Amino acid sequence: MDSNFKQKWEEYRSEFENVLADYLERMQIRPPVLNDSFRYSLALGGKRFRPVLMFACARSLGGKPGDVAGFALALEMLHTYSLIHDDLPAMDNDDFRRGKPSNHKVFGEGQAILAGDALLNEAYSVCFEECRKGKTYLNAAAEICKNAGVGGMIAGQAADLFFEQKEAGKAEEDFIILHKTAKMIVSAAVVPALVYGADENIAALFAEFGKHLGILFQLTDDILDVTGDFEKLGKTLGKDASEGKLTSVRVCGLDKCKELAEQHRNICRQILDDLPYDCSFLSELTDYVLNRDA
Amino acid sequence: MDSNFKQKWEEYRSEFENVLADYLERMQIRPPVLNDSFRYSLALGGKRFRPVLMFACARSLGGKPGDVAGFALALEMLHTYSLIHDDLPAMDNDDFRRGKPSNHKVFGEGQAILAGDALLNEAYSVCFEECRKGKTYLNAAAEICKNAGVGGMIAGQAADLFFEQKEAGKAEEDFIILHKTAKMIVSAAVVPALVYGADENIAALFAEFGKHLGILFQLTDDILDVTGDFEKLGKTLGKDASEGKLTSVRVCGLDKCKELAEQHRNICRQILDDLPYDCSFLSELTDYVLNRDA
Repeated sequence: MDSNFKQKWEEYRSEFENVLADYLERMQIRPPVLNDSFRYSLALGGKRFRPVLMFACARSLGGKPGDVAGFALALEMLHTYSLIHDDLPAMDNDDFRRGKPSNHKVFGEGQAILAGDALLNEAYSVCFEECRKGKTYLNAAAEICKNAGVGGMIAGQAADLFFEQKEAGKAEEDFIILHKTAKMIVSAAVVPALVYGADENIAALFAEFGKHLGILFQLTDDILDVTGDFEKLGKTLGKDASEGKLTSVRVCGLDKCKELAEQHRNICRQILDDLPYDCSFLSELTDYVLNRDA
Repeated sequence: MDSNFKQKWEEYRSEFENVLADYLERMQIRPPVLNDSFRYSLALGGKRFRPVLMFACARSLGGKPGDVAGFALALEMLHTYSLIHDDLPAMDNDDFRRGKPSNHKVFGEGQAILAGDALLNEAYSVCFEECRKGKTYLNAAAEICKNAGVGGMIAGQAADLFFEQKEAGKAEEDFIILHKTAKMIVSAAVVPALVYGADENIAALFAEFGKHLGILFQLTDDILDVTGDFEKLGKTLGKDASEGKLTSVRVCGLDKCKELAEQHRNICRQILDDLPYDCSFLSELTDYVLNRDA
């Protein structure tokens, strides 16, 4: 990872942190327990992968992060709610997230369910405000909603939970990866093209790039669950295997998984080459996802 | 309750059931467990109070149910998700809803959390589609979202959970009733005025009517938790008291509660009298809420 890439990532990330801080400053939530639990998980930070990706796609299209700031915020809120609910005892039962106690370990299960509901609801409140800017914004909001719901992330989560401890094969695992992880990353990649009203073919290429980047992201996530380091990842490792989760490593084995990851990296690069824009940062970002240790 | 009122209610209710059936027919959800859990709670039915109220308000304004059908669907989906999450062991821990096993008793807690998330997400997917019809629809969608979120229902739920087993007074109970229950009923009452682009004063009167009707609704709910009948209500009774819930009966006593209910009924009637429309059905509906046994 060269220092120029790192610097640009930090630039986008810090731009997003400002957007988030501005939003949180405007929010006055009662009762205090909801205010605290709502802010707690958003503030845990992390890589801000989805906002950084969205901002970078906006830049490639000749725009700027500010053009899609509301949607980046909404997407990160949706991602955050999904982590809170996913960590609950009835789901993945994880006590740690980003090296800190999970939301329900701090606020209790009931309040954590509500904090997740609140983030999900308010993500769309932000989207409705964005929709006031025009029809292309409405298209982007609808796309985010589609990819987060029963046609996307929630379907993936339901399948992920359903296939725990069950016999299943590559078709089921492909469904889970595509829906649980890749669809949200499709949103990050395609929203700028939709907001700018780009040609349909261009939007389709960004969506396709997001899909393969998302699959790559989940493959390396599954690999890291086996080979990774708690200190760097900030979450419990080896849990997928111990819980009988249907992961790509379980289905294909570690070596095949690494091979698949490289294949999806190559597809991403091919798509970026086909785009008539400067996509060098997106190309480096793809390599980063392939080689990440956190 | 005269037979004309009953008949009109049934008319609106059956109109809503058709809207819901059409929607569910178009939805193809995978995996099957999510499809089943998503449909299960929506199909449990109930009075469809919020859609009936919304349709009736549309009629009073000279419109028709079809004009706000999408929003009635979205609001009922939001209401349904809130019941699924509210019934979870970490929240109100209720095994029955509308005389049938709660969602989590049938599908397990994890899948019930996801079914709730799915209904919440898809409610807004329906709203984004409605927004394509124009700016007044966007205003209505934003209002629904505001009243369901941290400025409304979720705040009320968080306070309701927080004050369990705690000492608190009328101010806290007023906050809970207004946010947990009344705000969603405000949405039902005000959405038609927003969709039709009615004068601001008219919209404000509908919102005010919805607020007092919603408070009345929760007061009678609290009264029925003490005096009601399981067969008619289809849910466990006496639970609020046994769990130390902060209810209006606990705060004010049963007699004062009934007196307050009548006061809010009177305010509703006053507002309806001030509206330059035929609001006779809404007036009867208010009386029905005051006198209901289910």
